[in-house]
Amino acid sequence: MKSDLDAIMQARGLDALLIVGPTIHNPPMGYLTGGAILLSADVLKKRGADPVLYHHSMERGEAALSGLATQSYDRFPMVELLEQTQGDVIEAYALRYQKILEAAGIQGGRLAIAGHVDVGLAFPVFQALTRRMPGLELVGEGEFSTLLQAMAIKDDDEVQRIRRMGQISIQVMDLVADFLTSHRLQGETLIEPDGQPLTIGSVKRRISLWLAERSAETPDDVIFAIGRDAALPHSTGTPSDVLRLGQTIVFDIAPCEAGGGYFHDMTRTWCLGYASDEALAVYEDVHAVFTQLRQELRPGAQCKAYQTRACELFAQRGHPTICEDARTQRGYVHGLAHGVGLNVHERPDFSLRLANEDHLWPGSVTTLEPGLYYPERHIGVRLEDTLWVRPDGKIETLVEYPLDFVLPMR
Amino acid sequence: MKSDLDAIMQARGLDALLIVGPTIHNPPMGYLTGGAILLSADVLKKRGADPVLYHHSMERGEAALSGLATQSYDRFPMVELLEQTQGDVIEAYALRYQKILEAAGIQGGRLAIAGHVDVGLAFPVFQALTRRMPGLELVGEGEFSTLLQAMAIKDDDEVQRIRRMGQISIQVMDLVADFLTSHRLQGETLIEPDGQPLTIGSVKRRISLWLAERSAETPDDVIFAIGRDAALPHSTGTPSDVLRLGQTIVFDIAPCEAGGGYFHDMTRTWCLGYASDEALAVYEDVHAVFTQLRQELRPGAQCKAYQTRACELFAQRGHPTICEDARTQRGYVHGLAHGVGLNVHERPDFSLRLANEDHLWPGSVTTLEPGLYYPERHIGVRLEDTLWVRPDGKIETLVEYPLDFVLPMR
Repeated sequence: MKSDLDAIMQARGLDALLIVGPTIHNPPMGYLTGGAILLSADVLKKRGADPVLYHHSMERGEAALSGLATQSYDRFPMVELLEQTQGDVIEAYALRYQKILEAAGIQGGRLAIAGHVDVGLAFPVFQALTRRMPGLELVGEGEFSTLLQAMAIKDDDEVQRIRRMGQISIQVMDLVADFLTSHRLQGETLIEPDGQPLTIGSVKRRISLWLAERSAETPDDVIFAIGRDAALPHSTGTPSDVLRLGQTIVFDIAPCEAGGGYFHDMTRTWCLGYASDEALAVYEDVHAVFTQLRQELRPGAQCKAYQTRACELFAQRGHPTICEDARTQRGYVHGLAHGVGLNVHERPDFSLRLANEDHLWPGSVTTLEPGLYYPERHIGVRLEDTLWVRPDGKIETLVEYPLDFVLPMR
Repeated sequence: MKSDLDAIMQARGLDALLIVGPTIHNPPMGYLTGGAILLSADVLKKRGADPVLYHHSMERGEAALSGLATQSYDRFPMVELLEQTQGDVIEAYALRYQKILEAAGIQGGRLAIAGHVDVGLAFPVFQALTRRMPGLELVGEGEFSTLLQAMAIKDDDEVQRIRRMGQISIQVMDLVADFLTSHRLQGETLIEPDGQPLTIGSVKRRISLWLAERSAETPDDVIFAIGRDAALPHSTGTPSDVLRLGQTIVFDIAPCEAGGGYFHDMTRTWCLGYASDEALAVYEDVHAVFTQLRQELRPGAQCKAYQTRACELFAQRGHPTICEDARTQRGYVHGLAHGVGLNVHERPDFSLRLANEDHLWPGSVTTLEPGLYYPERHIGVRLEDTLWVRPDGKIETLVEYPLDFVLPMR
């Protein structure tokens, strides 16, 4: 939680945080600036002090919406900085950071940097800043940053915002299921009223629309993939593919609040009309592992242990897994789960990496998403819910939705 | 254009480009990967050779859609890299880059880096790479990068994609104008069928929907701002504000292809029902300067000269300008124009910065957007079109739309 930032900074020996870049599509920044929309800004937070938002004068109206203390870059006009650097833009940005830091009383110490920006600009600017302020240590914390650690524990308001995205997801799931099953057939192909086959592209356009009507968006696209694509975990689906009976359809929907806010993430796998015995057997194994792991999750447990356990359960059922071959593209091929928040993928981390010490902390929100993939058989099945590890020690599925596999045509 | 990349690299003494990060909301990457959607990838382009896309094995289906040569990270499994770095994640990423570069025959030389990623990860990784490969010079080119220079000149296909976004913009402008003017009034307030006042938030929800229906999105939000907000150039509008007659409304719409593609950018300023003499006078000055500059634009001319010229024209009409006071928040307070493409703001650059040598190159696409702002009088007016400097030397407005100020209620 935001209120944990000072304690995390203290534990890591950080004197300040500097977060850079736009406020949207930039979760570390959005976490501190809320709904304000600025194209380019900086937030400086000294340990033990409130964060300050530095902004262009033109964006002062939006800056004020952040609720943070604000300061305009006008204090250090770019035209004057460029004079001091003989027109060198990189040096001018570095000089502005130097002046901002010094005006805030920071002459040295450990400063962590974060924020999504063009590395072709940020890398030389921060190199120049390091040269200008030799007493300052710029700390890049990587994937286990102070901000991501704070963000991993949600307060009730954040959980409600994630749940609201989940409610939108199941409304859209219902609309898509109704839409699909009400189509007429020509042989095994779904046919639109105009006589043309129904395509993945057509379904996805409707999904976008139904999400937009609910003020949600999917920056990373919706996965709505059939047949061979369903067996490629990150294929988003081929727009020209035609909807047919008896093929596995993976529908993975991770909407966020419009403008880039909190996400929810869920997946269902459907077969229209009927499923082959082969597909049904794969589904039943995924369903069994999903249900088993859901029951085994315990607040406070180490996350990576569940990845090992998922491999074990799938291997017992005769499937290849990435635990035994990191490069397998058949069977159980991906991570079991990931935290969800302002990032669709965040902590807690379930990977087997040595550096990963994440636990199912009370207040964390995570997916659970076992799956099996057999590209050569055109079978892919994944089931995913988003779960909340409540402070009272219960684990709650944020929104409930049937796990049905076969959707009968009406 | 993409075909200019080798020549630009040659002129800058660059041996290779490395572009990092996701393929969406990351224009340098999207420029090379087209419509493929990958959460995390790298593109390496050696001078004189075709680019190669490095991707996670799970994203191989999407990687193939890029049309680029592809290589899976599986050649350098993270688990093995982490063993070699004793679990240090930053060093493992740096080692992967080292192995990718060395396998591509790059042991040293000048490598430009680009791509929108978390600087808290990228900065230490590229520092580590520099330590690992002392013969390699990592070049951060800042805002005048090789890629942005290539992107500044559009081919016909890119121009058509921008124009298509423009056609969507004017469809939505028409829908919004119709929607507003068909409302009934209570005094000077627009009233919804349910008897409640029509709000900015309600209009903006409809704009999002009409855009989504056309497979367009506005990652930076639409500006639909009335009254005092209209006089703050980057205010996006306050959702609870009520629509009233006789107030200036700035409507700035910059949709891009869904998933993050080409943008178009345009602005109109409206008054519903009537305009005060004061607002009308401001509008007429903006209109006159817009028309004058539109006629004065010449292919090949230096861009910054038009910013100076805009200041001159507004000053002649008695308005304060940023040329005379860089901090003014009244009168003409912002840049005149900017290139448009995969970024809503890109080159050519019209700023007065010393380093800016941009010209109205044939093949470039740019806005023209003079405006005047008087916050204390609640008056803001901006007019903006997107223009194409055609290779034949003509300057074409990509989509034409009336510049009307007062919209009569029906």
